[in-house]
Amino acid sequence: MSIVRVKASKEYDVVIERGGIAKLGEYLSALGIKGKVAVISDSNVMPLYGEEVSDVLTYHGYEVSTYVFDAGEESKNLIEYGRILSFLAEEGFTRRDTLLALGGGVVGDLTGFVAATYMRGVHFVNLPTSLLAAIDSSVGGKTAVDLPQGKNLVGAFYQPDLVLCDTAAFRTLPYEEIKNGLGEGVKYAVLEGGRIFEILKKGLTSDTLEEFVRLSVEAKRRIVEEDEREGGSRKFLNLGHTIAHAVEILTSFAVPHGVAVAYGVKEMTKLALERGELDPKEGEEILALLSACDLDLSLDPVEDLLPHFLADKKRSGDVITLVTIEGIGKCRLTEVKCQDLAKYFGVE
Amino acid sequence: MSIVRVKASKEYDVVIERGGIAKLGEYLSALGIKGKVAVISDSNVMPLYGEEVSDVLTYHGYEVSTYVFDAGEESKNLIEYGRILSFLAEEGFTRRDTLLALGGGVVGDLTGFVAATYMRGVHFVNLPTSLLAAIDSSVGGKTAVDLPQGKNLVGAFYQPDLVLCDTAAFRTLPYEEIKNGLGEGVKYAVLEGGRIFEILKKGLTSDTLEEFVRLSVEAKRRIVEEDEREGGSRKFLNLGHTIAHAVEILTSFAVPHGVAVAYGVKEMTKLALERGELDPKEGEEILALLSACDLDLSLDPVEDLLPHFLADKKRSGDVITLVTIEGIGKCRLTEVKCQDLAKYFGVE
Repeated sequence: MSIVRVKASKEYDVVIERGGIAKLGEYLSALGIKGKVAVISDSNVMPLYGEEVSDVLTYHGYEVSTYVFDAGEESKNLIEYGRILSFLAEEGFTRRDTLLALGGGVVGDLTGFVAATYMRGVHFVNLPTSLLAAIDSSVGGKTAVDLPQGKNLVGAFYQPDLVLCDTAAFRTLPYEEIKNGLGEGVKYAVLEGGRIFEILKKGLTSDTLEEFVRLSVEAKRRIVEEDEREGGSRKFLNLGHTIAHAVEILTSFAVPHGVAVAYGVKEMTKLALERGELDPKEGEEILALLSACDLDLSLDPVEDLLPHFLADKKRSGDVITLVTIEGIGKCRLTEVKCQDLAKYFGVE
Repeated sequence: MSIVRVKASKEYDVVIERGGIAKLGEYLSALGIKGKVAVISDSNVMPLYGEEVSDVLTYHGYEVSTYVFDAGEESKNLIEYGRILSFLAEEGFTRRDTLLALGGGVVGDLTGFVAATYMRGVHFVNLPTSLLAAIDSSVGGKTAVDLPQGKNLVGAFYQPDLVLCDTAAFRTLPYEEIKNGLGEGVKYAVLEGGRIFEILKKGLTSDTLEEFVRLSVEAKRRIVEEDEREGGSRKFLNLGHTIAHAVEILTSFAVPHGVAVAYGVKEMTKLALERGELDPKEGEEILALLSACDLDLSLDPVEDLLPHFLADKKRSGDVITLVTIEGIGKCRLTEVKCQDLAKYFGVE
């Protein structure tokens, strides 16, 4: 069991613990949380863990309601958001009560946004059941829903009261979902270097799983604590993401997020090698890491992706900030004007 | 011209200025705001001031879009919220751009919530055109929309970059709207006493209008700065509001908010007199003030309102915090258990 303490505008713990769900009631009680808890989950995850979560909370005296929506990114919209809000109002939830997200990134993002805005904010507990959600969206306080015009266009910065990553839950994930998590893991490995790079190079095992999650969460924590609202250093977390978002748009999100990020890291590595900004040996190491994680992908070429870079939410006026690679554990922020992007990527 | 500097989680100015709209472009430029501005207003206010606001912003180099919705509380819902968000996405608004609310409390609350959540927060400028919005919802960072289950059940705490109260706009308000503002004014007069009480006792004139707005804004600022997120002292702002909300629900919001608040202040004054907690002379003064403002109302008796107290968003579990009156400028927070409410109000 590992605990990572996150000091954002609110302080909270990320608990990484195999079988941690069984202790959920104790953890909530220890935080002084009382009253009603709404367990929000999707049609994939609720059947797997809903009953266990409800039971352990009921046993500890909580009044538990459950809300299930159809699994998939399509549910992360304002319609479902409104439905959950109305559900809470009908159930008589007050601002002292608690929302618990049980599921992957979609469940966490949507439930987090509801928690941030129902009566201007209620308690929020996140129980990520996918590897990707555990190491990525569960830390940092970003909540969101999609608009018809684009992903994550609406949301709030809102910190949870507790994040509980029960690594036992990851064992029920299909292989593609593990790869999806590893894709974001590769990002941390390149940003940080060191032990996390080693773990992934050797191939993730049940022995290194908890350490990998802890190191990823710690990496994200360090960056987020410096810059909660994405003014500066938080932008490093976007390594590979400009390309990833373009891949997602071009494939209508058929390529999972973490996998797309891995492709983004690969292309940024190749770009850095071409531009002579990255030592060839380190570049080879990164590419070998991607192979080791079964993430050496050939997706759409960058020239096809370029037009979609401009739709990036991170664009500020006519400038895009790219995270470029100068070495393992050594990235930098590079501002490129929109009209210079093709030239920068050598595809003009 | 008066400026009240508000030091919340973000610092900003409330500018109170007759004819201030003409200087809006300068004020925004001085804040370093650039790019696109969406002027959001309703079908009552946009025809009155939309063109002037658009012109002055365009003249100062801003790219102006306008969005109008049907006037009235019915528009303060998640449907209209989603429409405005999609409008911004279609217009290509980025997180550096700005939303400007032009109108009363409904426009400010709805636009503020959009500004708080579009791309997790963009610039927000509030230009309240009603007396009530100027002295109440424009300060404090509360944004909201309604659910079918109740008013203001969804929202965020979000501070504006600038609030501009152009007192010239208040001259186009109907008499009922002035009374609506005076109702909240009476609340500040009882909370604060002193000069603001005097101004209202003599009857508000064009000579005292700016000072009245300034004193109200300063009163609210002091309280909000102490307690931005309503943990403690901010609750004083709820003087008269438990009764007011019940009146609004019982009359389906036919009684305007400020008028309902004035009735709440009257009933809390009578209650304090009955309970012997308020000096009879001061009680008479408060009741005389309500008469001077043409707000000595006879609405639904408290016993009819009581059942609706429980729907109050401010309820925490089974306790309601009432703001009780011990003197002019001397109120206190009194916690009453839900089951003791009837007894407390002497209607059992």
